[in-house]
Amino acid sequence: MRAFFPEVKQPIGYEGPASRNPLAFKHYSAKEKVLGKTMAEHLRFAACYWHTFKGLGQDMFGLNTMRRAYCQGGDSVVVAEQTMEAAFEFFTKLGVGFWCFHDTDIAPEADTLVETNARLDRIVKLAKQLQRDTGVKLLWGTCNLFSNRRFLAGAATNPSPEVFAFAATKVKKALEITKELDGAGYVFWGGREGYDTLLNTDMGRKLDHLGRFLHMAVDYKKQIRFRGQFYIEPKPKEPTKHQYDFDAASCHAFLQRYGLEEHLKLNIEANHATLAGHTFHHELAYAAANGLLGSVDANRGDTLLGWDTDQFPTDLYDTTLAMYVILKAGGFTTGGLNFDARVRRQSIDPIDLFHAHIGAMDAFARGLKNAAALLREKRLETFVKKRYAGWDKGIGKQIEQGKVGFAELEAYTFKHGEPELQSGRQEFLENLLNEYI
Amino acid sequence: MRAFFPEVKQPIGYEGPASRNPLAFKHYSAKEKVLGKTMAEHLRFAACYWHTFKGLGQDMFGLNTMRRAYCQGGDSVVVAEQTMEAAFEFFTKLGVGFWCFHDTDIAPEADTLVETNARLDRIVKLAKQLQRDTGVKLLWGTCNLFSNRRFLAGAATNPSPEVFAFAATKVKKALEITKELDGAGYVFWGGREGYDTLLNTDMGRKLDHLGRFLHMAVDYKKQIRFRGQFYIEPKPKEPTKHQYDFDAASCHAFLQRYGLEEHLKLNIEANHATLAGHTFHHELAYAAANGLLGSVDANRGDTLLGWDTDQFPTDLYDTTLAMYVILKAGGFTTGGLNFDARVRRQSIDPIDLFHAHIGAMDAFARGLKNAAALLREKRLETFVKKRYAGWDKGIGKQIEQGKVGFAELEAYTFKHGEPELQSGRQEFLENLLNEYI
Amino acid sequence: MRAFFPEVKQPIGYEGPASRNPLAFKHYSAKEKVLGKTMAEHLRFAACYWHTFKGLGQDMFGLNTMRRAYCQGGDSVVVAEQTMEAAFEFFTKLGVGFWCFHDTDIAPEADTLVETNARLDRIVKLAKQLQRDTGVKLLWGTCNLFSNRRFLAGAATNPSPEVFAFAATKVKKALEITKELDGAGYVFWGGREGYDTLLNTDMGRKLDHLGRFLHMAVDYKKQIRFRGQFYIEPKPKEPTKHQYDFDAASCHAFLQRYGLEEHLKLNIEANHATLAGHTFHHELAYAAANGLLGSVDANRGDTLLGWDTDQFPTDLYDTTLAMYVILKAGGFTTGGLNFDARVRRQSIDPIDLFHAHIGAMDAFARGLKNAAALLREKRLETFVKKRYAGWDKGIGKQIEQGKVGFAELEAYTFKHGEPELQSGRQEFLENLLNEYI
Amino acid sequence: MRAFFPEVKQPIGYEGPASRNPLAFKHYSAKEKVLGKTMAEHLRFAACYWHTFKGLGQDMFGLNTMRRAYCQGGDSVVVAEQTMEAAFEFFTKLGVGFWCFHDTDIAPEADTLVETNARLDRIVKLAKQLQRDTGVKLLWGTCNLFSNRRFLAGAATNPSPEVFAFAATKVKKALEITKELDGAGYVFWGGREGYDTLLNTDMGRKLDHLGRFLHMAVDYKKQIRFRGQFYIEPKPKEPTKHQYDFDAASCHAFLQRYGLEEHLKLNIEANHATLAGHTFHHELAYAAANGLLGSVDANRGDTLLGWDTDQFPTDLYDTTLAMYVILKAGGFTTGGLNFDARVRRQSIDPIDLFHAHIGAMDAFARGLKNAAALLREKRLETFVKKRYAGWDKGIGKQIEQGKVGFAELEAYTFKHGEPELQSGRQEFLENLLNEYI
Repeated sequence: MRAFFPEVKQPIGYEGPASRNPLAFKHYSAKEKVLGKTMAEHLRFAACYWHTFKGLGQDMFGLNTMRRAYCQGGDSVVVAEQTMEAAFEFFTKLGVGFWCFHDTDIAPEADTLVETNARLDRIVKLAKQLQRDTGVKLLWGTCNLFSNRRFLAGAATNPSPEVFAFAATKVKKALEITKELDGAGYVFWGGREGYDTLLNTDMGRKLDHLGRFLHMAVDYKKQIRFRGQFYIEPKPKEPTKHQYDFDAASCHAFLQRYGLEEHLKLNIEANHATLAGHTFHHELAYAAANGLLGSVDANRGDTLLGWDTDQFPTDLYDTTLAMYVILKAGGFTTGGLNFDARVRRQSIDPIDLFHAHIGAMDAFARGLKNAAALLREKRLETFVKKRYAGWDKGIGKQIEQGKVGFAELEAYTFKHGEPELQSGRQEFLENLLNEYI
Repeated sequence: MRAFFPEVKQPIGYEGPASRNPLAFKHYSAKEKVLGKTMAEHLRFAACYWHTFKGLGQDMFGLNTMRRAYCQGGDSVVVAEQTMEAAFEFFTKLGVGFWCFHDTDIAPEADTLVETNARLDRIVKLAKQLQRDTGVKLLWGTCNLFSNRRFLAGAATNPSPEVFAFAATKVKKALEITKELDGAGYVFWGGREGYDTLLNTDMGRKLDHLGRFLHMAVDYKKQIRFRGQFYIEPKPKEPTKHQYDFDAASCHAFLQRYGLEEHLKLNIEANHATLAGHTFHHELAYAAANGLLGSVDANRGDTLLGWDTDQFPTDLYDTTLAMYVILKAGGFTTGGLNFDARVRRQSIDPIDLFHAHIGAMDAFARGLKNAAALLREKRLETFVKKRYAGWDKGIGKQIEQGKVGFAELEAYTFKHGEPELQSGRQEFLENLLNEYI
Repeated sequence: MRAFFPEVKQPIGYEGPASRNPLAFKHYSAKEKVLGKTMAEHLRFAACYWHTFKGLGQDMFGLNTMRRAYCQGGDSVVVAEQTMEAAFEFFTKLGVGFWCFHDTDIAPEADTLVETNARLDRIVKLAKQLQRDTGVKLLWGTCNLFSNRRFLAGAATNPSPEVFAFAATKVKKALEITKELDGAGYVFWGGREGYDTLLNTDMGRKLDHLGRFLHMAVDYKKQIRFRGQFYIEPKPKEPTKHQYDFDAASCHAFLQRYGLEEHLKLNIEANHATLAGHTFHHELAYAAANGLLGSVDANRGDTLLGWDTDQFPTDLYDTTLAMYVILKAGGFTTGGLNFDARVRRQSIDPIDLFHAHIGAMDAFARGLKNAAALLREKRLETFVKKRYAGWDKGIGKQIEQGKVGFAELEAYTFKHGEPELQSGRQEFLENLLNEYI
Repeated sequence: MRAFFPEVKQPIGYEGPASRNPLAFKHYSAKEKVLGKTMAEHLRFAACYWHTFKGLGQDMFGLNTMRRAYCQGGDSVVVAEQTMEAAFEFFTKLGVGFWCFHDTDIAPEADTLVETNARLDRIVKLAKQLQRDTGVKLLWGTCNLFSNRRFLAGAATNPSPEVFAFAATKVKKALEITKELDGAGYVFWGGREGYDTLLNTDMGRKLDHLGRFLHMAVDYKKQIRFRGQFYIEPKPKEPTKHQYDFDAASCHAFLQRYGLEEHLKLNIEANHATLAGHTFHHELAYAAANGLLGSVDANRGDTLLGWDTDQFPTDLYDTTLAMYVILKAGGFTTGGLNFDARVRRQSIDPIDLFHAHIGAMDAFARGLKNAAALLREKRLETFVKKRYAGWDKGIGKQIEQGKVGFAELEAYTFKHGEPELQSGRQEFLENLLNEYI
């Protein structure tokens, strides 16, 4: 088979922290065990199709900057096939176990849905073969309901029921091909399920429609016996002014309101967290506290910029705290770490794709080891447990058990007077964290 | 009775738009009817005790700048009584029908709870008399669970159950005095119900405690037969890094999770909306769409500043759109427009308090009239209705009624092909809005 | 000539505030006099070529949504000619006196510079004819140094001198065609004159190169006797992480450092101001206070979104305060109000372009009238003058004249003691402003 | 002498990275040499008086939370003396070589300036003795021109010349005591040198007054032969809506405009940088590139919060990149790293002050070592040098030398055609940085 990444001659290997080889892992060693599982099992890395193979450096102020061998020659379906081959070459050389895609990433839309679906079938067949050949698996599939002109006013929340129907038709197919590729999950990201102005918007009706849409998806999933996990992905804005799935808590409100909380978990993205005014850590912790933690779009934003920069995750504080929450919540089951990240527009060489993913995988490997050390040594956990120890006994326990009300608590307070206070010890804990970085 | 605002000789009157008198209303005419109700009935203006009478210009970088006659002389309880008298003089001269307060605003905390409660009783008696004398009513009461040192790590979400108990004791009393003053509502704002760092925090346990706390309040409300409406007030942050009641959607998630949605509505604050990354309009619309719209803290933030500036509301776009949502949702029942706003630190004269409130009341009066005109002429409403008209018939209706699923929609789409698209007409609608400003 | 906007049969006319015709001006009446000049003379409206004719609704998450008649058929140069004809039809029907363009807006880049320049010459000839036929003039020209792949790392600040040279070559031509079209000015906006990461950046060297580049432009301007005004346009970020021309003050620092302050004024954009954390009002006031106010990109951002939304200006507070500063600074000479704004992606019809511009022109017409009323009645001016009156006499005057130093001021203070303080009266002034809205 | 910090029995020692002792340095070893100088000489750590000794946990929503032994008993001057003793005990036990203060931090203002100055003299005498006894030195002094009510509308930019005079009187004294204590510098931070609303503001006149004020200070400095370095400290906002010294570039513009650039350098604060929308790294790099890098307020903000959180610096990316810029610029001469940071409001114990400073010092020690390694190995430097190598020869050199203009560059471009492009390698560089963290 033709090589699209000839710069990388062999699979990226582990060379340890002292290595200066930019094409080697310094921390990620797939089979090394941490807390009883291999690093690969813990981290379940996925490369994403859209940024990594379809993104060519375009931004709002400029055209493509990247020129890829797999884009050369042939018609659009041939290019699609070459791209799929290049992708699996990349997955294999890099050593990620999973991939993720939108329907439109892998096959270009045709003039009719019939032809579009035929193209999808053709490419999916190729992908299935490549999965079998390489052992690379599908972490999740999804459907692009935001790029085509027809979705300019949303898909499930579109003012036109015909667009809703069109979106349903596309999601139906996307679920089928995700099942065909044995995807471990399926993600709903409603890129335009929001509004640009409230002046033309009936918010209540739109939310009802979104609820209906997801129930239809749940029904269809059962019908075709797709066993992957459904996820909803919070993002506050961009491309819309406001998206209904603003953050984890908004999704939580929505899922409860429409009786969907048992059917969908959250796919938390780092950059979407910060766009919503939260830390990545917060969104993960909120999801974990409410039983909604599903999968992760592992990237990094720039909190001084107001758009989705989708940078590769390299901040060790982020990776350490993320893995700490994930491990404490029991680790991934169906989910994983999908690099929904793109190389910068100036990083025009194919080798930059390798640098980017290697750096991100190493950063999460370090995060995993740091988190494992934190968990093993339990200094953080013990501190927190002790801080809340009052709730395990006496009046605290009675409150938690619902045995007392305001009258009893008033009596208690009149008897005991002003409470003792303890320091929150934030600086001590921040220093402690730094011991693990 | 001694006059604390001698600069204002008589109640502020309505002089119409041509007036140049800064101490006259140019738009607010209390008894003028709009859409069948008086402006006073629609707007239900309240002055707040904390900023207006207890705020003296302090900020994080400077001491008090304002010197008020009612703060002079006597011990702290005498000052508290003078302040209450000044407040009712102000309410009366200004012409607001309601007020709002925290327990600690009206009576200074003493060394013991017994004495603190005794002081409250004394002042509440005075307030009750003044309410009777003036006809001014209590829109809502609330309890300060954030200023005292003991609440440094929160109240209901404090790591110490003793602080929880103390908070319960204080809220119990606050509910009692709110009932005594015949308050139309009671607000929960959890100023420190959040965290400064996740490193020392057990988020799940804290949320459970907050749920318990509010259930106890609901129980006690029933027990004492207080018939006012409970509200929860969203705010994302400040003083904490993160507050659990981040925005309307977060509160909605929380209320549903803990089975509290029938007991509490939302008190939406304009500045809290923008701190959470939303417009005031959005938060009101979200609350309305989910049946949670209760009352409003009418102020204004500065979206280029990252803290709660609590400025007086003067932006006519904000007041128009807010009144449009409120009127469409049926108008206030128990709630109203509470000016949770403070004069700038440089506005050191008592007369500035009058300017500030007059300007805000006029701005909302204009907003009310603009919104009423919008509703009467239905140009906006008709546009939106037409935009969503597809849902009232055919496939749209079938979707809403749950009669079709993905398979039927696929068949529909294959039959009908690419949907027709319509312009969102945002610029047209923005121009239309400007016709009413 | 073929009509590209047949929906609009005749020039947009003035119908007054009571009109409900969305295709009529309600406030802008070109020949009406305000403070001794016609509204057209004051406002000097310009339509921009890039958004209005070349922007078709693409965003980072979606393809074009708008289909224009002038884009149909023919090769790219024919489309370019049709577009130019459509543009002048639009200018004329709308009634703007000016237009603005980038070189690449009007003629598509060819494979070689020679051919690109030939295309420019051909289109410029057409534009010149259309200018002559319609009386529409060029407010300013500019050069696109950010869209083409070659400028991925900047133009004048590129790490490669060859790109610098290429940029110089393009600006040379852009100056020539701007002169040919008798442009009243020329704008430098350095869309990628910044950095994505400091890790690969030599900031000092880059700033030196930018200084050199502008000096070369100044020299060439003299050489070809182009008499238009040069402007530099501040923008903080996007597409770069950081742009050197962050805001008015940064530009001011740069111009002084490189001895360019007599050669360039500022082109202030509303949305760039807010992206930098400033109000539009602030940036205009800063420019005016430092003698740098040149021209204005009249649009509107969304302060709750972190990217350049480039919305049409409709907020009357913004337009009133902008016109107040501009009038106080003496009004435009070479500059004007260029609508660097685009209709929303959902506003897909050509008629939306008319709505958008009409609304913006009306909003500025109202702003002009409001500002004129403020200036005529001098209530604001008088307040400010009085507030600073202490500097016109006594110790204030001595300080301004440089006659006293710390020792004299200490003596003064020891003698006079604590100063009297006056209220800043912000609420009073905000109410006063509302009287004019 | 009485011990105010009995919890810490002896000076904090260095125990190395493996230590788990929260009261030991793990990385900072004062006398260890790095690149030829001791760590103490490189880092020049200073503790600040205001937050560390005068800050007691107050915030906008709550009263003091911290109770310090040195605040007990006696009148305010006795407390001031105790505080000074406690401070030097802290400096000594912690092992910082420098301190910083505002005049009002060390001595409480009295009713008259004469008495205030007398108090200052008394406390300065004590401080001088303590400096002599301990060897701790003054990094810089400054004057508080923002807390007292009289400065509500600014000091040098106040609308009242009498307040200007008062401010001058206070700065005169502050310069005298800074000289008396042999301060290595003096900082101007204009906390209220900005505006709350432009409606009441004459920006141009205010800037002129600020220019005058600083010239008077320069004159007085010469007069009393104070040889310390003057610094101006950028901050964008808070407590004002806008501060004239918004960021490094704004200060640069101001200093040039008023001919002050040779007299003042910048004191860059990390949290002020992020409030202005910049990274700490950026502000340092800008200052260095323009010859303005003076001293540093070493703290950390929270980019998801919009106010000055003044947290202790613990992020190793920040400390590494800061030290990289500082070392490349030649290291500190008069300046140093002042911890303008405060423990969180919940960190109520004196021991928290030690944790906080130890963690920050360790974080900067790691940053210093990381930066030194980067400089030694030159991988980053070499990359950047190579990226800009085109400027060292040929056309690049000619451009830098001013030997060519647009015409020559056009000829060059026509001859050479499209430039070769190189990848910006951002991901590679971010990975490289992570090798040093």
